[in-house]
Order: sequence, then structure tokens, then C-alpha cells
Amino acid sequence: MLGSTHGTLTTDFRARVVACGEEPHAAVHSMTVAAATEGVLDVSGRPLYAAVPDLDRFFRPGSVAVIGASDTEGRPNTGITRQLIRWAERVGARLYPVHPTRKSVFGLACSPSVAELPEQVDLAVLLVGDPLPVIEELAQAKVRFAVAFASGFAETGEEGAAAQARLAAAVERSGLRLLGPNTNLNAFEEFRDDLDGPAIALITQSGHQGRPVYTLQELGVRLSHWAPTGNEADLETADFISYFSQRPEVGAIACYVEGLKDGRSFLLAADRAARAGVPVVAVKVGRTETGARMAASHTGKLTGADQVVDAAMRQFGVIRVDGLDELQDTAALLARARKPQAEGVVVYSISGGTGAHFSDLATGAGLNLPTLSEAKQRELHEWIPDYLNVANPVDNGGHPVGDWRGRKIIDAILADPDVGVLICPITGPFPPMSDKLAQDLVDAAESTDKLVCVVWGSPVGTEEAYRTTLLGSSRVATFRTFGNCITAVKAYLDHHRFAASYRSPFDEAPRTPSPSFRKAQALMRPGRQLSEHAAKQLLRAYGIRVPREQLVTSAAASVRAAALVGYPVVMKASGSRLAHKTELGLVKVGLTSASQVRDAYRELTDIARFEGIELDGILVCQMVERGVEMMVGVTQDALFGPTVTVGLGGVLVEVLHDAAVRVPPFGEDQARSMLGELRGRALLEGVRGGPPVDVDALVEVVLRVQRMALELGDDLAELDINPLMVLGRGQGAVALDALAVCR
Amino acid sequence: MLGSTHGTLTTDFRARVVACGEEPHAAVHSMTVAAATEGVLDVSGRPLYAAVPDLDRFFRPGSVAVIGASDTEGRPNTGITRQLIRWAERVGARLYPVHPTRKSVFGLACSPSVAELPEQVDLAVLLVGDPLPVIEELAQAKVRFAVAFASGFAETGEEGAAAQARLAAAVERSGLRLLGPNTNLNAFEEFRDDLDGPAIALITQSGHQGRPVYTLQELGVRLSHWAPTGNEADLETADFISYFSQRPEVGAIACYVEGLKDGRSFLLAADRAARAGVPVVAVKVGRTETGARMAASHTGKLTGADQVVDAAMRQFGVIRVDGLDELQDTAALLARARKPQAEGVVVYSISGGTGAHFSDLATGAGLNLPTLSEAKQRELHEWIPDYLNVANPVDNGGHPVGDWRGRKIIDAILADPDVGVLICPITGPFPPMSDKLAQDLVDAAESTDKLVCVVWGSPVGTEEAYRTTLLGSSRVATFRTFGNCITAVKAYLDHHRFAASYRSPFDEAPRTPSPSFRKAQALMRPGRQLSEHAAKQLLRAYGIRVPREQLVTSAAASVRAAALVGYPVVMKASGSRLAHKTELGLVKVGLTSASQVRDAYRELTDIARFEGIELDGILVCQMVERGVEMMVGVTQDALFGPTVTVGLGGVLVEVLHDAAVRVPPFGEDQARSMLGELRGRALLEGVRGGPPVDVDALVEVVLRVQRMALELGDDLAELDINPLMVLGRGQGAVALDALAVCR
Repeated sequence: MLGSTHGTLTTDFRARVVACGEEPHAAVHSMTVAAATEGVLDVSGRPLYAAVPDLDRFFRPGSVAVIGASDTEGRPNTGITRQLIRWAERVGARLYPVHPTRKSVFGLACSPSVAELPEQVDLAVLLVGDPLPVIEELAQAKVRFAVAFASGFAETGEEGAAAQARLAAAVERSGLRLLGPNTNLNAFEEFRDDLDGPAIALITQSGHQGRPVYTLQELGVRLSHWAPTGNEADLETADFISYFSQRPEVGAIACYVEGLKDGRSFLLAADRAARAGVPVVAVKVGRTETGARMAASHTGKLTGADQVVDAAMRQFGVIRVDGLDELQDTAALLARARKPQAEGVVVYSISGGTGAHFSDLATGAGLNLPTLSEAKQRELHEWIPDYLNVANPVDNGGHPVGDWRGRKIIDAILADPDVGVLICPITGPFPPMSDKLAQDLVDAAESTDKLVCVVWGSPVGTEEAYRTTLLGSSRVATFRTFGNCITAVKAYLDHHRFAASYRSPFDEAPRTPSPSFRKAQALMRPGRQLSEHAAKQLLRAYGIRVPREQLVTSAAASVRAAALVGYPVVMKASGSRLAHKTELGLVKVGLTSASQVRDAYRELTDIARFEGIELDGILVCQMVERGVEMMVGVTQDALFGPTVTVGLGGVLVEVLHDAAVRVPPFGEDQARSMLGELRGRALLEGVRGGPPVDVDALVEVVLRVQRMALELGDDLAELDINPLMVLGRGQGAVALDALAVCR
Repeated sequence: MLGSTHGTLTTDFRARVVACGEEPHAAVHSMTVAAATEGVLDVSGRPLYAAVPDLDRFFRPGSVAVIGASDTEGRPNTGITRQLIRWAERVGARLYPVHPTRKSVFGLACSPSVAELPEQVDLAVLLVGDPLPVIEELAQAKVRFAVAFASGFAETGEEGAAAQARLAAAVERSGLRLLGPNTNLNAFEEFRDDLDGPAIALITQSGHQGRPVYTLQELGVRLSHWAPTGNEADLETADFISYFSQRPEVGAIACYVEGLKDGRSFLLAADRAARAGVPVVAVKVGRTETGARMAASHTGKLTGADQVVDAAMRQFGVIRVDGLDELQDTAALLARARKPQAEGVVVYSISGGTGAHFSDLATGAGLNLPTLSEAKQRELHEWIPDYLNVANPVDNGGHPVGDWRGRKIIDAILADPDVGVLICPITGPFPPMSDKLAQDLVDAAESTDKLVCVVWGSPVGTEEAYRTTLLGSSRVATFRTFGNCITAVKAYLDHHRFAASYRSPFDEAPRTPSPSFRKAQALMRPGRQLSEHAAKQLLRAYGIRVPREQLVTSAAASVRAAALVGYPVVMKASGSRLAHKTELGLVKVGLTSASQVRDAYRELTDIARFEGIELDGILVCQMVERGVEMMVGVTQDALFGPTVTVGLGGVLVEVLHDAAVRVPPFGEDQARSMLGELRGRALLEGVRGGPPVDVDALVEVVLRVQRMALELGDDLAELDINPLMVLGRGQGAVALDALAVCR
């Protein structure tokens, strides 16, 4: 099963291709994809697929060399060497110390150099201050993987970043794969091997930040791998996501991310996990400026604009959480719980207050708590007194828990076909009730495929029912707080809904330019902002409607243009450096006669002359009044490249910042879901009984703008259609103004 | 100190006055207030002050009667009787069983009836199915307090609510104070008496929901009282808040609230706590419709419109949290921590990643993490390597923790005058570092008045450093998650800032009607919606500016009116049943000549005739264009009575629901803070470089509307000024349209 085919390594950093070394998770599909698509690029020259690096021999090497091994007490390398020896014994790897002068280390024969190692080793651990000089030697010795612990690279500033770039270049030339620098021993920790079921694979950019997930093993949650990626000179978070998503033992991937090395490689990895149906749960630092700055100074990586990171993660089903406790609880649930059979959640408690409180928070978070059927309620009332509410939440009043009825109630709830999840919040230990209840829940969970969750609310957590009964079961998901239970269950249902309907946007992303592209290219002016007229031509090239308009340079021409465009008309100054035309008085609306047009021409050119603004002419435009003003735009993100935004248009957008963003490529479903994220989305459904607007046309504009962003790539530094007037249903949308900046 | 003066009981349920039975917390001030203000009402007839009920003898009775005591095995009353006997022994109370036929219960002599009790008892515990018949007997025996455990009252529906009303009436006539019905034994739990320092007093409407806070005692947090209020036929949450806020041993009040009996009594109690500087932390169910419905069916109380509850709590400094874990952590911190000496928070960690992550979440939540001074950073670098960031967060890199430098660093941070709080997040136990670090933090906390917090991130929580070192200290605040630490520290700093500047709005609330009131009364039309013109006259009565306008009933009069008002004018249909005038075409703007006015008059009356709308005339109004459209309104809340709202005006307000609400009485500071809550608040500061608007005038309108709401009380069912055009700074605000509905 776990084959050892070792692929060729290419040096194209954009689409590093390493052949698939094993039967992947969703085996046939992924293999096909990998075979058919290596190196395929989209229209912007970005890779559409990244193959999965074969890291089997990294995590389970047959042989390991420790460069700089030591057994001199008091030296840091001594502790590391000792830990590596213990680890190698445990995993059955042959360990070779390497040191220029020592004969042996901890009784193991020492090689003076890499070249003189007794065999071709899988993994070299570099305990040297500067790993750069060793890379070439390792390559010559055909070592596959190296780990560099040394710090002092990108995390320390410019000089360190340059050193890291040299190291990365050497690694790329060498053909080996490097973890680090600035990493640690986490990959060689001891994992409990007595735990069953799907495991969590952990990826962290800080060892301490991985500790809580690692410690979950003490609560009975299995961990299969830990990748501490450090500065990611070579191997990055994305590589491990790809690899873990294909491992059969991995049920979920938990990540602590401070910054991403490359936006695209992250998305391709998330896509691979989504295709395989393996959930990825991530804490990503950088919600605030402070956090982003701190994270950058810690690992030397950019964190990216947070709104964009957030959107990108959601597009590809990555579940983002804020706290390490949420990371623990959500990853553990997603790793272990089976596919839901229904989306309905029932809250079952020994207290009406607890049921009410939990239900309040759960429905607030968007969970669906269906009202149980009359028949089911009658059934539950066989065991629960009539005056108690069993519609959902189910309040048993306490007493039935203590006898045979307790189990009956749980089984009856779980038998309901609308119910996929049963949650029992227990606010505190009350042994006569809670011990029996815990045991019943564990027993019931063993005999169902549905999800059974318990919240154990005691702040102490040393109680027998909690530590032995509940944690002893891998079938019951146990939480300590209402909040974390709700977060995890929401993520669980969201993930499975997402995975069931996932279609990779990379499969559908354009690979060759559209006919629009050539027209658009001719309009681009490198380094300049296009005039409104030119920007609108760009839109027209991509089939986006603009008002009938003519650019004129004389009063007489403006009158002729108005006749052609049709009264009433709007007249605006047009020039390549113009913004805020309205505020400058450079827009005249509702002109209904030749004389008004002539006057307007004179006035606009006068203002421009007075203000010293260079014009390429005056635009005479068709007037479009009835509709909802929206904005659609493109901006460049440092991490992800071009992004597409849609929001409320007009003046208010600047005040309310009510906009949604997506990272291309994305499909029509995502374009539609952007509109659902707007607080002002009701505007699109018609205000005060007015008719709804042409949402389909708005979605179409978003998709055409995406196409433009993909084809023009970095050359289109910025695009802002504002307002885009969205007309009544079936009537389309018209870009009334546009701003475009070329790189 | 704890005097036994027992005051007269009045029967006015709105302002039940019980004399202060002890030296209160903020003694002199509160006593003065109580003496000077008993029974004082505001202009709407609502009480301005509620005296503190004397509950000393409830919680620490000298003698207790148990009505319906039993020692027959298997009967529920037997367990309760046993627990009460144990409790009475512990607290030193004399216990008298009462039963019509038994001679003795558990060896204690039994009285056949209340009348035959050997002494006048402080407290009677009613273990009878129907407490109503006993109330009169208790009153005759001069029993001060009773607790009724029986259920089957308001929580069961209409019939039960009627029974509860009869019980409440009997209690009110009797002069005794009743806890319950539908309550439990929580008030008679065992409290640890070996714990020092300020305690948490707990109030719950569900026993199970109080369990987590109660269990905090096992982590060393002192609990002084537990009031399980049940259905609140008499004593309610507010009474306990008032009482606890005056107890010297109470450091914080923790509440679990499903519904409030009365909005005003809750606010008066919160006001009393705010005056005394005692923090109140509350979970309040009812964020969602589901939660509100469930809570209502559990205790038979309304939960109130959640946005209003939320605002009311914030106005009076009540800290609302969502989870019971947050209730625990926040109440424990607020009870125990001393007043902050500075608002600055420093994050100190053994990992740059942990520092970055924690800082990101903390700044996102609004905590202030000041950059440490150059001098302080130099000082820290004496012990921390130079390449590590010590600006805040302070990253010690791990090693200095293990030796003498660890304590030096902590002391140096705490010595900084800008620092009020030091937070050390420890993501997992790593004994060589974390044990020593925990001890250093505990030692440092003992020698400072500043707040030292630790987050112990291990999911296990059985480690020695956590359970013994950290939990053994009452000076270190220990949390289990980043999130709860941040929530609690934010609440701690917010509370002390609030308390330091608190001025009770009840002291400044109007007690007598303003001259406006008589004018306004004359305009009210009970049961009807006022016409726009009449509604505007109401506004004018309260000094709110409206456009110059005249109501006319002929075309000729409209032309004369336009000349008086001044061109350009707006003309609108005016009638008592009119809404959405714009959509009906019943508004004409920008009329600049007599002929346009004459035409408009004809058109408006034609439309009204065609639509069958009854008009009281046509309004000819001054046209006001330049400004920001806002809305200010009054609505009636089921729990709190009239509330005042301010928000974005015009059509968009219906789409964006961008509004803030307050419960009167409130001062100018709150009116200003409402504006700060608006997402669109930047509109008020000027859009696209435009000038800022007259915020002072907007605030003034809000306060005048509040005055109107207070004086007209329930008679003003609804008021909606929309748009209120707020003009440039110094130019005021004009109510362009208004809708008023009389009850």
C-alpha cells in the first residue's frame, strides 16, 4: 500500500511536482487528477494543480543522519541528539551521528562527514549553525529530506531573509526537500500508538502553539503527525496539507498558521483536501494589524489582508477558528465523527434552563433544531412527565435519567430520521444523575452512527464520569463549554455539506485567453490610470454593459453626440487622472436640450481649466436612473494576487464598507454567495415593495470581472466599477462609471 | 455591623420599600439616597429608587420552620428535610419541623401547625403542594421569609399563571417575602468557609445552570450566596442584586437570567450595584426567538426584545456574557481583582507565536496593548536575548524562565506605570519551564497590586503547576482559554472605567412635566395615528426643528403658502393614515414657481382621490437638501416601556437596520455613545471630504425625544422621525417627516 516510488523533482517553484507516492485517500480520483494535470497552468500562468509531495520517508525514515550530533553534557545539541536516538529506536530507524572529530556519540559510531555515511539515508537532521554549506553534500549523498533547526533567518529581518533566500535556492538546486530553518523537534515527538480511529495531523508554525492539540492524546484523541514548518524555506504548510489529505489514517488536519508562503499553493492544497473530503481546521493569526505585525516578526512571513485570507479559506472549505481550544475541539470532532445522516440537532438535558440556554446559543450560531414530530413527542412522554417540553430541546426533568428510562429516551431521539446530532449539555457533576447519564450516552453512541455530543460543564474536570466514562469513549464527542461544542458541531455539519457538493474551481478555470483578452490588451496603458472612457471600453471588451456614450472635444460635437445618445444625457469630464468628479462639479446630469448640453460643455471645460486638470474630452452619456447602485472591483492582494469584490455602490459604500471578496478562480455559486454576505442584500430584493433587481445580471458582471482579472493578471492593478446600476429583473446591469489602473 | 433593624413592608409593588438593614457597601452615599428618595417617582410615574430588601435573616436565619417535613424513606420531602437539618446545624439555626400528624421528624419535635411553633421564626420552608393556604398562617405567626418549592405555576401555562397571581397577591397582603414557587434547595447549599477574599454571590433562574459557578469553589473561588429565584412570584432577581451589592463580602454578582419580572426594577437594582461599584455579570437567555420561547416556557417569564435588554444592561454596567464558562471566569476575576492602576495590558510569553496569537485576539477584542518604552525594552533585554521582541508582546524565548531571570522580567514589566495587567498565556505544560514560570507569576502577583493573569492551555488540567501552584493563589487569575481570559480582562477594565465615571441617570431624570408636555397633550389623539402635520407639531412642542410649512386645502392657498415658506418648496399629501408617501407619488420636490405649485396641488389631490386616501390637506414645506438623513424614534418594549432609537435614515435604514437603542432615563453621554454604535457613523464625520454634520444637534434631538417619551409615557405608542436631516456643523437638524401613533 505505502509504495516507495520516488518521483523526479522539478525546479519550477510555481508548480513543484512530486509524484504521488502512495494510494491516496480518495485514491482513484486523485491519482487520475495528478496524472492528467501535472504542470497545467491557468490563463494567468498560475498552476491549476499541485502534486502531492511524498513525505512517507520524512515521517517514517528507514535511516537518519544527525549532522552535528553531540553527547557532551550541557550542550543543546546533546539533548536533541538524545531525543532523536530515542525516537529512532521507537520508529525503527537506523541512526548515524555525523561529526568531523568525534569517534562515537552515545555509543553510536560517528561518521566524519555526510559523504562517509554507511548508507544512503532518508533524512538528515541538521544541528549546525549554518545549514547552507551542508546542502550540497547532502544532495551528493542522495539524502531525500533534511530538517534545519538553526534560527537567525527571515524571522530576524532583511539580512536573515537574504540568508534564507540563499538557503532556499541551494535546496531547490539540490533536489532534496528541507523542513525549516527555525524549526524544532515536534516532528519527532512520541505519539500514542494505543489509540484507534481516524487521527488528527497537525501543522504548526510555532511549537508552543501546537502543544494543546498534541496534548489531546491524553484525552484519548489520536494524533498521527506533527509538522512544525518553521520558516518554510522549502516545505510549506501547503505541502503538508496535500500530503496529509491523502493519508488513510488522517481524519482531519489541524493547522496553526501565522503567515502563508504562497497564496496559490495554499489554495491548491486546500483544494486537494476538499477533493479528498478531509477537513482542514486552522487558526490563522492576523485578524488585526497588531497580530499581523507580530506574526511577521516571528516567522518572517506576510499574513495577507485578513478579509481575503478569510474568504479564500471559506471558498475552499478550510474551517477557520480563533482559539487553540476551538482548534482542539473542532479538529477532534471532525477527525472522529462519521458522516451526518441528517442535519437536525436535538438538545437533550436534565434541566429546562440548560436546554433553553443551549438552544438559544445553538440557533444563534445557525444550527437547525427541528421541532420533533407529534408522534415522537408522544413516544418521549412515555418516559418523561407530560408537563415537560420534549419538542426540542428535550427536557427530561432529571428523574428519568436515574433508571431504565434514561437509555430509552436517548435511543428514541436517535431513532428519529430528522435527527443527525444529539447534544446533551451537563452543566455540572451530580453523580446520582450525571454518572448514569454519561454511561447511557456512551452506550447509545456505541450502537448508532449518529453523532452524540456531551458538554461537561464542571470547571474541575477530574470527575470519574468525565475522565473515565466519557473520555474513555471514542464514539462520544465530549466538550467543556457550550460555545466550543456549538462551534465544532456547526463546523462538522458545514464541512460535510461543503464536501458533498464540492466541485473544484480549478477544474473549470480558464486555461486559454478569451477573444476579449486581445481587445483588452490593446486598451492597457502600463503604469497609468485609464480615463473613464477607456476603462469603460475595457468593460465592453468583456461584455459588460456601459451606457451609450461618446467622447467629444468640442461643444458642437457634444450636441451631435447627445442627439445620437438620446436625451436626457449626462455629461462628465474624462481624463486619466480624474477621481471624485462629482465633488469637483465635473458631472452634469439630466440635460434635456441642445442648449443645456452646450452650456454644460463650456462649464465642464472651464472648471477643468480652472482646476488645472488635463482632460481627454467630455463624455456625453445616456442617463440611467432606476436601479440599485452596486460596486464591483478588482484589487491585488500581496498573497493571493487579484481578488474580486462586490458591494453596495455609490457614496455609501465608502462609509459602510459593505462588500464581499473572493479569490479567483471561483464559480457562479460563489459569486451568488458573495451577495448573500452583504448586510444590504435586501436592497437587491426590492426596497419598500419595489421590484427585485436583476441579480443574475449582477452575478454575470462579477464573473466577467473575474475573467478579466484572470486574463489581465497582475497587469490590472485595480478596477473599480462604481456605480454599477443593477436594473429591474431581466433588464441587466450598466456600469455607469469605472476606474482602471494598469501596472 | 450586620444590624437587625427590620423595616416596614409597603405593598406598593412598583416601589417596594424595605429599610436598609445594615451598613451598606458604599455606606454613607447609599444610606443618604435611600433616606431621601423612598417612593420618589419620575415624570412617567415610575419609581426612581428602589430600597434594598433586608435579606440577612433569609440567608442567615436564627430559626427555620420546615412545613411538610418528613422522615419516611422514599418520599422526596425526606431528602429535603435531611438536607435542611444538616444545613441548619452548619449555620447554627434552630430548626422546627411542622406536620399535622407526626410527633417528631428525624428526632426533632414536630409542631402540628405554624401557629404552634415554639418561637417567631425567620424562615419557613414550604414543602407543600400548594403554598397558598399557608401564607396567611405564616403572616399571623409573623414569619419573615418563606420559600416555596412547589411547581405547576406560571411555567405550565395560563392556569398556572393564574394560580401564581393568587399566590403573589396573598404574599403581598401578608407582608412576608417569598422566594419561589418552583425553586429548589440551592440557597441552602454548603459553602466553603475556608476561602478568603471577596466572594461571588450567585443568582439563578435554574439550579443546574448555577452549578458551574457554584463548583468554582473547588478551584478556590469563594462563593457567599446562591439565590435560586424560581418563578419570582415575589422576590425577584433585582431584589437579590440590590441586596448583594450592599454586602461587604460580595466582590461580584453572577446571574443566570431567563426572563425579567420587571424591566424597571432590574434597572434600579443595576443602578444600585453601579453606585456601589459592585460588578454584575449575567448570562441572559433570549438572543434568538427560539431561546426566548424556551426560556418563557421554563419559568413563565417574558425575555423582552433582546436588543433592548442588551442596551439596558450596557447602560447600567451589567456585563453580559454568553456562556456559563464566561460567567465563571468573568465573575471570578471581577470579584477578586483589585482596581486597575493603568489600562495597559502586556502579553508575556515563552513563545513568539503564542504572543502574536494572543495579541491578535486581544487587540481584536479592544484591549489596549501599549508598546513598552525604549528604556523598559532595554531593561528587559538585560535578561532576554536581543533578537527577541520585547516591545509587547514580550517574548522571552523560553530559556530565561528557567533561572533567576524569570522573576526579574515579570517584576520589570509590572513596574511599568503604563501597565495595569500582565497576561502570561502558557499553551501547554512543559514542566522544566512552565512549573517555574507558574511559581514566579504567583510570587510576583503576591507582591503587586496589579493584575496578573495566566492562561493554562492544556486540555487536561490535572498538572501540579495548574492545580496546586496557580489555583492555590487567589492573587493570580487563571484561565483555561485565550478567549475567556480576554473576555474577562476586557470586562474588568470596562467595569472599572464605567464605575469610576458612573452618574446615575435616575438622579437626573425629570420628575415634573416640562412646559412642552401640556402643548403635546393637546395634540394627542388616543388610538390614532397623527397626520404628518400634527406629528411635526408634537416635535415643535418639544423644541425639535421642523421645516417651515403650511397645511393648505386649496390650490390658491398652496401658492400663498409657497410664497411665505420660500421657494423652492416640497409639497406632500398629509393625512392620518398615510405612510410610504413617496412610493404613492404623494410627494413633489423642488417646486420653483407658482404654476408648478398649483399643478402639484392638483396632482396630489387627484392621486389621493384615485387611491381613496383621506387627506387633511396638502403640506407646503421649505426644501432642505444638504445634510445627512438620520432617523430618531420611540417604540414601546414589553419589558422596559418606551425606548429611544437613533439610526441611519431614509430608505436605506430599512435595508441595513443600522440603529442603536437606549432605555430612558439616560444622559447625554449615552446619547453620544449611541452614535458610536452605528456602522455608518462615518457619515456624520463627512463623506468624501465633505464637512462633518451637526452631531450636537442630533444628540439634542435624541434627548428631546427621550423627554417626550418619558412625559407621554405609554400614551405615545410609536414615534418615527425619518428622515431627520442633520445639517452642517452649527446648523442644526430638521425633522423632514414624522409619524406618531397614540395609544
